[in-house]
Amino acid sequence: MVDIKNDLACGISPVERVGPYTREEFLNRVISFHSYAAPGVIVGGIMVDLAMKQMPKSVLYDVICETHSCLPDSVQLLTPCTVGNGWLKIINLGRYAVSLYDKHNGNGVRVYLDPKKLQDYDEIQAWLLKLKPKHGQDTDRLQKQIWDAGQDIYTIHAVQVKSSYLTKRSKGTIGLCSVCGEAYPIRDGAICLGCQGESPYDAFLPSRS
Amino acid sequence: MVDIKNDLACGISPVERVGPYTREEFLNRVISFHSYAAPGVIVGGIMVDLAMKQMPKSVLYDVICETHSCLPDSVQLLTPCTVGNGWLKIINLGRYAVSLYDKHNGNGVRVYLDPKKLQDYDEIQAWLLKLKPKHGQDTDRLQKQIWDAGQDIYTIHAVQVKSSYLTKRSKGTIGLCSVCGEAYPIRDGAICLGCQGESPYDAFLPSRS
Repeated sequence: MVDIKNDLACGISPVERVGPYTREEFLNRVISFHSYAAPGVIVGGIMVDLAMKQMPKSVLYDVICETHSCLPDSVQLLTPCTVGNGWLKIINLGRYAVSLYDKHNGNGVRVYLDPKKLQDYDEIQAWLLKLKPKHGQDTDRLQKQIWDAGQDIYTIHAVQVKSSYLTKRSKGTIGLCSVCGEAYPIRDGAICLGCQGESPYDAFLPSRS
Repeated sequence: MVDIKNDLACGISPVERVGPYTREEFLNRVISFHSYAAPGVIVGGIMVDLAMKQMPKSVLYDVICETHSCLPDSVQLLTPCTVGNGWLKIINLGRYAVSLYDKHNGNGVRVYLDPKKLQDYDEIQAWLLKLKPKHGQDTDRLQKQIWDAGQDIYTIHAVQVKSSYLTKRSKGTIGLCSVCGEAYPIRDGAICLGCQGESPYDAFLPSRS
């Protein structure tokens, strides 16, 4: 079990750095990747940084995000884990939480933005709980509160990831779909999932190339 | 409907650039983001580049990836669309295909790696159809074939994305879960999905911070 270092998670001192970056450097990276300085990516960056500091240096970790909003981009900006390399998994439970865990044994830490700790941060509370319409948000004040709150608004605890999440996802044997002719994992059925009706397209027009 | 420009998709001339990058620049970006020069991210980069060239310049597009392997990282490297900003959606149909489409009306293009066009590219075929174990792959030969094949191994066609995919995903009203105390979308039920049994953790230990 990962031993939580309480000293890292206590005390109200403003966040000055996110991972190896100054605030400004991190914001520039967020804008470059995510297209705008979304509060969720900033909050997420602080969460990921907190979690990384808890993990023993020698551990190769994977990541679980419990939401697909914003937080996955914080992970992809600060860690080697991406959606495409499979080291970042999104399990959409609708909670603003991220876990880093040893990819071999599942021991890890989970960090979440804790609603119980937001009484002094009305803009953060309003953002997390969607108490205001987006156009009513005071973006500058929200960002200032996020930096000023430091690590005080997050809760960290140890987790043990279920063994079913530790095995590498494999597509199994690949075949050709007899309808569309494309490659697909044959465990999906006699034809591919797209041709079984899960395609997101209204019309599948004939190829013109 | 997007008018497919056939001249971009024909002819065997090796790929020299991916988006704004030379081969080498692109490979460096792939290694920096994805951690290694995965053939899937290179193939994906060429596919995304092909699709981008088909889209009218003025169109704000979103992206659908039909697999979570590798391809999402090509999208995140070459377009403004990321998982976290919601402009990239992964609909896992197990097909190596990507679609770019007008986020307002769903008109777009879909590009896939076409198994019918791989007869002259045995390493690409073996990789796509998993005909060899990974350690038996000749990585250099595979990468050379990917570059040499040019745009010849892909098929492009117009698509119309279903209207249900065009509306912005919203979490709806947010409440506090009476079990874990965390914020969650109340449409998920009386308690959050994690506390309903969908948590990926074996044990949820008490907070220590």
